[in-house]
Amino acid sequence: MKKELGITSDKFKETSEWYEQVCLKSRVADFGDIKGTIVIRPRGYYMWEQVQKYFNDNILTKFNVDNCYFPLFIPESFFKKEAEHAKGFAPELAWITTATDTGEEEKAIIRPTSETIIVDSFRKWLRTYRDLPIKVNQWANVVRWEVSQTKLFLRGREFLWQEGHCIYKTREECEKDVIGILEAYEDLCKNVLAVPVIKGRKTPGDKFPGAVDTYCIEALMPDGKALQMGTSHYLGQGFMKVFGVKYMGEDEKEHEPHYNSWGVSTRLLGATIMTHSDNKGLILPPGLVKNKIVIVPALKKDNAERVLKYAEEVKKTLSKFNPSIDDREGYSMGFKINDAELVGTPMVIIVGDKEIDDKTVTVKIRDEDAKEVVKLKDLDPKSIFAEMHERLYQKAKAFQDERVVEVSTFEELKKQGQAGNFVKAHYLPSDAESEESLKAEAGGVGARCIVTDEKSKGKCIYTGKETDIVVYFARNY
Amino acid sequence: MKKELGITSDKFKETSEWYEQVCLKSRVADFGDIKGTIVIRPRGYYMWEQVQKYFNDNILTKFNVDNCYFPLFIPESFFKKEAEHAKGFAPELAWITTATDTGEEEKAIIRPTSETIIVDSFRKWLRTYRDLPIKVNQWANVVRWEVSQTKLFLRGREFLWQEGHCIYKTREECEKDVIGILEAYEDLCKNVLAVPVIKGRKTPGDKFPGAVDTYCIEALMPDGKALQMGTSHYLGQGFMKVFGVKYMGEDEKEHEPHYNSWGVSTRLLGATIMTHSDNKGLILPPGLVKNKIVIVPALKKDNAERVLKYAEEVKKTLSKFNPSIDDREGYSMGFKINDAELVGTPMVIIVGDKEIDDKTVTVKIRDEDAKEVVKLKDLDPKSIFAEMHERLYQKAKAFQDERVVEVSTFEELKKQGQAGNFVKAHYLPSDAESEESLKAEAGGVGARCIVTDEKSKGKCIYTGKETDIVVYFARNY
Repeated sequence: MKKELGITSDKFKETSEWYEQVCLKSRVADFGDIKGTIVIRPRGYYMWEQVQKYFNDNILTKFNVDNCYFPLFIPESFFKKEAEHAKGFAPELAWITTATDTGEEEKAIIRPTSETIIVDSFRKWLRTYRDLPIKVNQWANVVRWEVSQTKLFLRGREFLWQEGHCIYKTREECEKDVIGILEAYEDLCKNVLAVPVIKGRKTPGDKFPGAVDTYCIEALMPDGKALQMGTSHYLGQGFMKVFGVKYMGEDEKEHEPHYNSWGVSTRLLGATIMTHSDNKGLILPPGLVKNKIVIVPALKKDNAERVLKYAEEVKKTLSKFNPSIDDREGYSMGFKINDAELVGTPMVIIVGDKEIDDKTVTVKIRDEDAKEVVKLKDLDPKSIFAEMHERLYQKAKAFQDERVVEVSTFEELKKQGQAGNFVKAHYLPSDAESEESLKAEAGGVGARCIVTDEKSKGKCIYTGKETDIVVYFARNY
Repeated sequence: MKKELGITSDKFKETSEWYEQVCLKSRVADFGDIKGTIVIRPRGYYMWEQVQKYFNDNILTKFNVDNCYFPLFIPESFFKKEAEHAKGFAPELAWITTATDTGEEEKAIIRPTSETIIVDSFRKWLRTYRDLPIKVNQWANVVRWEVSQTKLFLRGREFLWQEGHCIYKTREECEKDVIGILEAYEDLCKNVLAVPVIKGRKTPGDKFPGAVDTYCIEALMPDGKALQMGTSHYLGQGFMKVFGVKYMGEDEKEHEPHYNSWGVSTRLLGATIMTHSDNKGLILPPGLVKNKIVIVPALKKDNAERVLKYAEEVKKTLSKFNPSIDDREGYSMGFKINDAELVGTPMVIIVGDKEIDDKTVTVKIRDEDAKEVVKLKDLDPKSIFAEMHERLYQKAKAFQDERVVEVSTFEELKKQGQAGNFVKAHYLPSDAESEESLKAEAGGVGARCIVTDEKSKGKCIYTGKETDIVVYFARNY
């Protein structure tokens, strides 16, 4: 990475390098010392806390889910019970070795996901139909020992996430929540991150290991690659059977409940940073920034006292937003404005002689080019921030909408996908192997998800067979 | 553990067995499947969320500390840099092995505490005196592979905690926060947990590995054993030197900052449960219970409709507290009241024919013996809960105060300590070895902390030497 203070790469031409610079130089994150780990700095963690707050206050409350905490360590035997699950996670598992030989024979796996250990608790807790549904969620770190290239927030060996796990009497109730949660994730992305997503169901080759159906939300990044933003799985009764989770029904017979799980991770932060930021640095929806307003005094030789006094007055007027005054000595006004923009401060307020005389402030909103002079008494940051959030969302939405293209031949699919579009096409997915072949032949353009709210007859782009299934394709992270 | 629904052991006679039953049967926690791990169930996790909320809103704000997140994995070499730190944690370390040979040579330790990895970030972040102080905190899980007996919440191989880490220009600023945080911890225990603590400084043999001074808060459990509730360390400049953390001062020379760290863990939940609960089950300060009010209808053959209607009216009147109605069929009123008390419901409201006629409710507060009949319109849960919190605190405080005894001979120390008291005595601590001998000779009664707000001349209880140091002794967890 170049040593310059500011960003030296271009968002659309060198997205990967640009993204890394934005994360590091805006002081959102650092690389950890063990490969593939991340240090989430205060600016980054504040973003995560806003996701958590929205999630706890809106989604968990609405779906009646309780937070709890399960162990980091899972007995290896648990992990082997569900065959597909075991197979899917085996390559990325890490387990522990200890300094003391404690005579415990079983390997302890560090959780890559918690289905097995949570299902084992369901087995202990569940007695009769009266206990259902049981709905829990945990905020936790998980470990997947990636061998592929890791990337700040987007792919790491340890990441933070929430994982919800619920069991129900009927498949209907269970699937209703699978979809309900997916929609709630879409709202979260819109309302908190200002990131538009598409929704759909994963093809058989891309399902969560052990799931009957996996639903997902996906966003299109500036380099035209799709990023999976969240998943919601209907897991059926498979885990229930292998772990012996049963309940006595109203009919006084034993039944197995239906199971779902769903999660979003700190990957959301990476998607948000990548979607909105520009070549000057970080841009975020104002709700994700703790220090929303920085006041920069325009100092000349003789005006320091009165300008700083006025800056204090502005600060007091806006005290609800807890602005800070950048009164560091030895730095120019231009440097201070650039620095505030680099770290994504939504509003920079400049005050100098002219502003004092006119009782105004000069306002620069992070995502707009022009500065604006407004009467101090008329300045309404709350509305300005709400408008900025909406503007960021609409801009990202327009970017995504423009890049949704429909095609009917494999050549077009390949061409449009490689050009960085979300490509819609008729496709009859058969199995993981065939999906891998398609992706290889299309130069990395693969099925992202089946469009669930749209059906039409057409010919499969890969096999030519008749199908009513429409699929989104894209290159992906 | 006995299979009965209720608690079958006595709080003061069989504290350990009683405590385990309360945790399990009140559905606060379960044992994890890997030895020494814990499942924190929703009732338990809600307690932790209240600790987090108080801590974030009050302590972090007051001391200007930012939340962030550092990796779970620490390079082994980091851990070896500070000799005492390395020695202190070596026996309990766990590290990882992975399914893929990724060619990385260095062992990754699973954090038992994060001084080393956070200090390494300070090294990267710190440039000049203008950057100081740097104050960060993380909420995280840590792993210490205990070989001794583990105990739900009190001692486990994985636990949740917060760890604050700050660096400053001067020793004075640094130590001021060490003490400030200790006092804030005391307030947290009082205001959130209703648990009284004593404060002090650790003796040399009991300091945190790598610290210059360790300050602590300790509480006395019902079996007369002391429990360390939180620690705040002044770490001096040792970690700074070995990690090369330096800054350019105003004098344009290089300096090393002064460092402190401090933490409280989910152990606080265990202390709270143990302090307040009784032989009927869980008792908690109402602020730590999500479902604060349960309405139990007193149903007879013919009154179900009007009683349930009145129960709904009561529920609506108290809607601010979101009460639930226990209208489960097939369970007696007595069973329902016992169940509500077992899980620590602060207020049980009984409604039946008499209550309907008089527009009253019969109220049973969890920590009081008698039921009380009050006019529905006069019922004020907020005041009742505040009073309950204060009552629990005062009861625990009286228990602790009664057990503080002063002695002047080693025989008395041993006798009073073994009887379950906080024993105050003059003591001149010399080193870890001598402290271990004293504890062995006193049958497990050891130094807990040096009383910092009191000095008086006297003879050391162990060596007979003159000293002005007064120390609290007790058996301990």
